[in-house]
Amino acid sequence: MSKTVGIIGAGQLGMMLGEAAQELGIRCVFLDPGDNPPAQGRGELLQAAFDDESALAELAAKVDVVTYEFENVPVDAVRSIADGTPVYPPAPALETAQDRLSEKRLFESLDIPLPGYRQIDTRADLDAAAEALGLPVVIKTRRFGYDGKGQFVVRNAADLDAAWAELGGQALIAEAWVAFDYEVSIIATRGIDGDVVLFPLTRNTHSGGILDTSVAPLDSSELETVARDYGRRLVEHFDYVGTVALELFVVGDRLLANEFAPRVHNSGHWTIEGAATSQFENHMRAVAGLPLGDPAARGHAAMKNLIGRMPVGDFEGLHDYGKSERPGRKLGHITITATTAGERDSRLEALNQRLAKG
Amino acid sequence: MSKTVGIIGAGQLGMMLGEAAQELGIRCVFLDPGDNPPAQGRGELLQAAFDDESALAELAAKVDVVTYEFENVPVDAVRSIADGTPVYPPAPALETAQDRLSEKRLFESLDIPLPGYRQIDTRADLDAAAEALGLPVVIKTRRFGYDGKGQFVVRNAADLDAAWAELGGQALIAEAWVAFDYEVSIIATRGIDGDVVLFPLTRNTHSGGILDTSVAPLDSSELETVARDYGRRLVEHFDYVGTVALELFVVGDRLLANEFAPRVHNSGHWTIEGAATSQFENHMRAVAGLPLGDPAARGHAAMKNLIGRMPVGDFEGLHDYGKSERPGRKLGHITITATTAGERDSRLEALNQRLAKG
Repeated sequence: MSKTVGIIGAGQLGMMLGEAAQELGIRCVFLDPGDNPPAQGRGELLQAAFDDESALAELAAKVDVVTYEFENVPVDAVRSIADGTPVYPPAPALETAQDRLSEKRLFESLDIPLPGYRQIDTRADLDAAAEALGLPVVIKTRRFGYDGKGQFVVRNAADLDAAWAELGGQALIAEAWVAFDYEVSIIATRGIDGDVVLFPLTRNTHSGGILDTSVAPLDSSELETVARDYGRRLVEHFDYVGTVALELFVVGDRLLANEFAPRVHNSGHWTIEGAATSQFENHMRAVAGLPLGDPAARGHAAMKNLIGRMPVGDFEGLHDYGKSERPGRKLGHITITATTAGERDSRLEALNQRLAKG
Repeated sequence: MSKTVGIIGAGQLGMMLGEAAQELGIRCVFLDPGDNPPAQGRGELLQAAFDDESALAELAAKVDVVTYEFENVPVDAVRSIADGTPVYPPAPALETAQDRLSEKRLFESLDIPLPGYRQIDTRADLDAAAEALGLPVVIKTRRFGYDGKGQFVVRNAADLDAAWAELGGQALIAEAWVAFDYEVSIIATRGIDGDVVLFPLTRNTHSGGILDTSVAPLDSSELETVARDYGRRLVEHFDYVGTVALELFVVGDRLLANEFAPRVHNSGHWTIEGAATSQFENHMRAVAGLPLGDPAARGHAAMKNLIGRMPVGDFEGLHDYGKSERPGRKLGHITITATTAGERDSRLEALNQRLAKG
């Protein structure tokens, strides 16, 4: 008998989860505070805040299993639901991803290499971290915040005061600066039965601190083998259920873990057209207890994010999230598929030139 | 005797205004709610909200003239200050720039061509605008808001419902879609004595809805002549005092007005190194009643914004705003100067490749 899945969040990730669910015959119920979220029309929508206890209870009562599309869901809310209704991915994965210090300690415990880091609670800790890690050093809040604060790159000793003025008073960490060659992500899905599938390693390019382009598969079997091993350790540690993304820096022939997201991920959007089974379908299969599908690439794919402004005209592979334009906002994406990497790259170049026009 | 200038806002524009003021021997007093704003150290800082009446009165009492670095200053606040202390640019310019409908009507009255538009107050107006202007059509709020709402591109009739759900209930306008070749801006400064100087026409490239690169001068004397004429009409209409930026779309051999900003502008940052006098110096000269400087280009310049992530290493022409990193946030810029356009373009290409690395 087909399951009903509750999804906390109805943004574009919820929209694409809902599309996959519809093809699998799975019903979805979304919880989101928005008036007109992207996932609207992909299932029932409960309009409420993510920490609204009665709305969360209503969601749990309506469904067989609950999942979420973003990692800022309050962990307490997830735990309270999980007393009566299964929530996947499991709460410990969510809790670890919400705290950069816990996340780094996890990578260490799993023998996944990562850049040097230091915990910072006082101004003296900040000075000691700069001394130990060298300059430049990146100062970050341990927890994601809605307060608009971000991270600060300390380039010289004089920046330490500015970094403390901007971020001091919150729980912080310092990360050693990594002069990486490029960034990759490995996306994995683990089923309730323990089956693990790993998607092809994806190369990611950012612009303005926001993902711009992902391409896959890559032609580096050494990096891919190592990344798959790290991804597998991560999902097995948590007895994970669902899709997870692990972001890594490539430095020469080494991989260093940056962070993981306990959810479907922007760098896996290409799998809708470019893999035998998408990250969204495998996530829904996992949480609904269905067997996982084949994650193998079909040819060569590229995903181009549409940020801030929406292009006009017909684009093959266009996914429109139906959102209003705002600088830096993800409005949609375009997937390119091709039979060779060269063909994919030349089509991506042509797309970029077309998008540069009004 | 040297003047003291009050500046509402102490962001990076205030920082660069303050740097120009210091070289001119002008004292600055900034008003800003931030703990550690970029203009800190460039003058006295009053920490208060932009609509804090007693703080505004304190600012006005401390200075000879008041100016502002961004166009969301409450017009009522400007008018109340202006009863006792001159405020430049004049309040009518600010008020017009804050309302897209007033702005478009001004362009019409000045015979500055612009894309077709319609006022929208009801759902029926929206349908009529789509009918009159054709699809695609861009729906925007008339006023800038802090509510996170932006603009919506209606690509087909089915999008009208989504646009209304997202933006309906606010005063809106519809703008005809313009398939422009590229965007330019003309920056002008007018002095208290009516002297007007116009900076070289600048070509602007955006990424993710945020300015990415500006280059100047251009080699199109026809466009430049027309743009200078439009810029001059704009400042003369308001008996303007200070620097203004007029953004225009280039469509074939035509220029269509997009919007104007009654302040120094990101597309004019290249003038610090690339012009005989910068937009910042001329703004401070204008509001302080000093003669304006020569705006002519010195060679060929490019300005590259640093968005979201701050690069590490030594970069000639780097301006660091001292802000924490956040996706989509302007953190600094790099100016390239060269003796030929070809040399500038190849150095810009090399810079972009360097910035793409970690």
